[in-house]
Amino acid sequence: MTEPSLVHAKEDHPTGRVKREVKTTKTIPSDIEIARQADKKPIREVASQLGLGESDLELYGNDKAKIPPHVWKRIQNRPDGKLVLVTAISPTPAGEGKSTVTVGLGQALNRVGKKATVALREPSLGPVMGIKGGAAGGGYSQVLPMEDINLHFTGDFHAVTSAHNSIAAMIDNHIFRDNTLSIDPRRIVWKRVLDLNDRALRHVVVGLGGKTNGMPREDGFDITVASELMAILCLARDLKDLKERIGRIVIAYRLDGSPVTVADLGVEGAVALLLKDAVKPNLVQTLENTPAFIHGGPFANIAHGCNSLAATRHALKLSEYTVTEAGFGADLGAEKFIHIKSRMGGIQPDVAVIVATVRALKMHGGVSRDRLNESDPDAVTRGLANLSRHVDTMRAFGLAHVVALNLFAVDTEAEWRRVEDWCAREQVPFALTRVWEQGGAGGEDLARYVVQLAEAGSSNLRTLYETDQPIRAKIAAIAQKVYGAERVEYSKQAEKQIAECEKWGWHELPICMAKTQYSLTDDPALFGRPEAFTLHIREIRPAVGAGFLVALTGNMLTMPGLPKQPAALRMDVDQDGRVYGLF
Amino acid sequence: MTEPSLVHAKEDHPTGRVKREVKTTKTIPSDIEIARQADKKPIREVASQLGLGESDLELYGNDKAKIPPHVWKRIQNRPDGKLVLVTAISPTPAGEGKSTVTVGLGQALNRVGKKATVALREPSLGPVMGIKGGAAGGGYSQVLPMEDINLHFTGDFHAVTSAHNSIAAMIDNHIFRDNTLSIDPRRIVWKRVLDLNDRALRHVVVGLGGKTNGMPREDGFDITVASELMAILCLARDLKDLKERIGRIVIAYRLDGSPVTVADLGVEGAVALLLKDAVKPNLVQTLENTPAFIHGGPFANIAHGCNSLAATRHALKLSEYTVTEAGFGADLGAEKFIHIKSRMGGIQPDVAVIVATVRALKMHGGVSRDRLNESDPDAVTRGLANLSRHVDTMRAFGLAHVVALNLFAVDTEAEWRRVEDWCAREQVPFALTRVWEQGGAGGEDLARYVVQLAEAGSSNLRTLYETDQPIRAKIAAIAQKVYGAERVEYSKQAEKQIAECEKWGWHELPICMAKTQYSLTDDPALFGRPEAFTLHIREIRPAVGAGFLVALTGNMLTMPGLPKQPAALRMDVDQDGRVYGLF
Repeated sequence: MTEPSLVHAKEDHPTGRVKREVKTTKTIPSDIEIARQADKKPIREVASQLGLGESDLELYGNDKAKIPPHVWKRIQNRPDGKLVLVTAISPTPAGEGKSTVTVGLGQALNRVGKKATVALREPSLGPVMGIKGGAAGGGYSQVLPMEDINLHFTGDFHAVTSAHNSIAAMIDNHIFRDNTLSIDPRRIVWKRVLDLNDRALRHVVVGLGGKTNGMPREDGFDITVASELMAILCLARDLKDLKERIGRIVIAYRLDGSPVTVADLGVEGAVALLLKDAVKPNLVQTLENTPAFIHGGPFANIAHGCNSLAATRHALKLSEYTVTEAGFGADLGAEKFIHIKSRMGGIQPDVAVIVATVRALKMHGGVSRDRLNESDPDAVTRGLANLSRHVDTMRAFGLAHVVALNLFAVDTEAEWRRVEDWCAREQVPFALTRVWEQGGAGGEDLARYVVQLAEAGSSNLRTLYETDQPIRAKIAAIAQKVYGAERVEYSKQAEKQIAECEKWGWHELPICMAKTQYSLTDDPALFGRPEAFTLHIREIRPAVGAGFLVALTGNMLTMPGLPKQPAALRMDVDQDGRVYGLF
Repeated sequence: MTEPSLVHAKEDHPTGRVKREVKTTKTIPSDIEIARQADKKPIREVASQLGLGESDLELYGNDKAKIPPHVWKRIQNRPDGKLVLVTAISPTPAGEGKSTVTVGLGQALNRVGKKATVALREPSLGPVMGIKGGAAGGGYSQVLPMEDINLHFTGDFHAVTSAHNSIAAMIDNHIFRDNTLSIDPRRIVWKRVLDLNDRALRHVVVGLGGKTNGMPREDGFDITVASELMAILCLARDLKDLKERIGRIVIAYRLDGSPVTVADLGVEGAVALLLKDAVKPNLVQTLENTPAFIHGGPFANIAHGCNSLAATRHALKLSEYTVTEAGFGADLGAEKFIHIKSRMGGIQPDVAVIVATVRALKMHGGVSRDRLNESDPDAVTRGLANLSRHVDTMRAFGLAHVVALNLFAVDTEAEWRRVEDWCAREQVPFALTRVWEQGGAGGEDLARYVVQLAEAGSSNLRTLYETDQPIRAKIAAIAQKVYGAERVEYSKQAEKQIAECEKWGWHELPICMAKTQYSLTDDPALFGRPEAFTLHIREIRPAVGAGFLVALTGNMLTMPGLPKQPAALRMDVDQDGRVYGLF
């Protein structure tokens, strides 16, 4: 549910709070105020809607629970419900509200008579303390308890942080002791992580201060959501699969160039042990008491950016409709959902919802951020080029889809009609949604389209590449069929790394593209639908534990920084534990 | 309950597993096996023994709960029960089993008809993964669920880690932005923390890699239990007090030498918010279903080394007897319990239990570690000098006390009789305990002595210094009356820091001594009861938020390292979530 690098980008846009300002013109209470007044049910009651009894829950307070493994054993052979994938146009600093639409659609489906559950990612604390101040949906389409979900929640990310850094400590200890694995200290690819925005930790030197402190070497910290362990947590089918994947993680290379894995260190058992509770899906609820699984949160640019497979599979077995989202635009999250998560998990979306906003379309149409409050229907029309690219992608995947226009207070009818008219011409179902302002009631039209497409069996899902194709062919398929690129160029480094992947037998893994979310190209300044461009692959990083090869285009920051006025400055807690400054 | 620096020291003793080897000669199952077979009650039932209802609990699964603040409001005006402080002779690598005796005594008190609760520290993950492999008591005197308590438990330490590192990130961001507070980057005293043993992070350089990554500077990581926030968590009376203490933390000095606090950064609200759940005491149970509060765990050498004041106060209001422990020997934990925790919290121990073992007394009597399994009554007698020093300290405090000899399988009667005889001559109550092997039944004699002393009102507690005395006078009082030192010497640096403390008005804070736990002197090699020695004060570090001045003698490591064969190598979790390798 959180997009750390989107947040990071906001840091570069000093007027990054436009969306919220617009919201407040409607005099709707703040998110935390709405959340406080919510008619929250005990999580036991929410679980009973899913047919889960008290012994099927590990309670974390009255309003959060983890689902223990015996539940999966009981439900695993049931048929799956329908799966709705919420994606979006290329995000802009104006914001799209994809999480809000996901929550609102879940609520709306229940209103139109379908037993629906939502499945989202957990927010990362770094962006919450940095720019976001919260990431649990918004307005009347939120998940609860938002103050816990935004902070430590059930401790999953902390477990990943501990597990990740334990591996790092074991590596340095191994070198300090006798380095029997012949690890090359210059080629340790396993960094450290913290669930924080902290630019000063991006590049550090560790092991200083003399012989008793180990071997000095260059190192760095990523944000926890960028950890390969986070991706593994989200893709593992069970504890056994988790442990095997952890064992396969490549942490370093030997002096002879061969890879060293976690299994070589012998700590995959301990690392899996540290994650034994984190792998259990978390159950909470929305403002309208719709069950919500919130679990896992890998980075959406350098990893696959979807909530956990375990949570999605639980939801599919326990409800008629599961609404889930994938990070950023359809070029990133949705592509990875289909090529990575669906493929590994044996699940398939039935319908996609493409979220767009008038404001974001205007930015794609060339309007600058400070003029987004002025009506400009022609800019909307120009911006539709971006939407059209993502619609084409859904068609390429054979995935039935509906465009959801997430309406803001300042949007004019003349503007949103341009979207509706375009959709009519393209024969794409179109629904206005007002879920932020109205909750589920504002998403009923969307819900009806979704049900119609799902029940008609309109999708005929296909992948755009096979994993046994050569690495370059897989990358070319994504670049051309999803981004609309004309050609792909590889750096010398990337060429060398492709050869290395082939040498070590990693070439049959799927590709996880690492690309700016703001553009279909690798240049974040190119909005809309650029044509005839070249995609530049700078680097190939094997994530053998997660089970994909990361193809980096441009410079992906994996540790965000804090803005000049961090959201933390507004946060507070009073004597009675009442929370302020989250939204 | 955990002693990270004790563990660290074990790293220096290659035969550090003696204690466990001895245990296994009795063919008693391993700790985790005993724990698995335990007849654990739902925590709701345990709570009901304390008069707490379901609405008084925030459940973390079926066997752990946090106590929300409304409970304290209801019980705060009740009279306190009796408080039993478990301390020990100076620890040796042979191990004393203080936590085990604490748990066993709690169980034993219930067996002799007293409503008793234990109050312990939470284990730190670093030592658990490093040497210890677990720290939740042992044998038939353990707290449950030991596998959770030893790993992430209810997330308190992770919350401290996040809160601590958030402050660090805010400091570097402040300097990166415009440094309006004129922070001197060479005098940032707030380091970063991780709950790990990781020597490579002791001394690092951060902010490398160019202008966008901040300002390069020297930095380092401590283990989380060494964080001042951990000490604050354990001393704060409520959320308001917590936030005020956080605001007072000195994080750096300005170019003009004046201190900069967290309040100057403006993030004390956000930091308190991150700790809002961590401040709530955790309730679990022992193997015999005795209620156990396990909460907080500050380092016992550079901080005060006791569980949280909040937990102890809850236990005192909810039961007739509260059994708690303080870190290391009576020279460290017990002294700080009385001068710091009791003073700040308005609580007073009624009885002290001084734990000793034949093996540790033999080490104090000069026996080397590899010969501890040989009977040597004369060495026991020589080692009694160490015990006598701690008995004298209890007398100085006016605190009634009993010696508990924690019996091991290989100990001979000739050996333990020497202790009994000495105690008889000194008119100190003496009890053999077999709580590791027998649980509460093995501690009934001890329990009866404790009840007798407590009900007789035998204590007449006095402090050994007043906080308004000069800093040197306070240090001298501890050195002479507790350690038996003849004089105290100060380094030039310490002299300067004392002047600085007086300048900034911190001189009326109590003293928190940072001294090796292995010796009454500042030289860890001097066992027994050294006489006519000089204590060397190297440094004075103000912990203004925690509310004490740390006086360092010698070089205290605040980030342990991993041993050659970390305990993590033996840990595992199977397909069904069953845990291995914790003990």
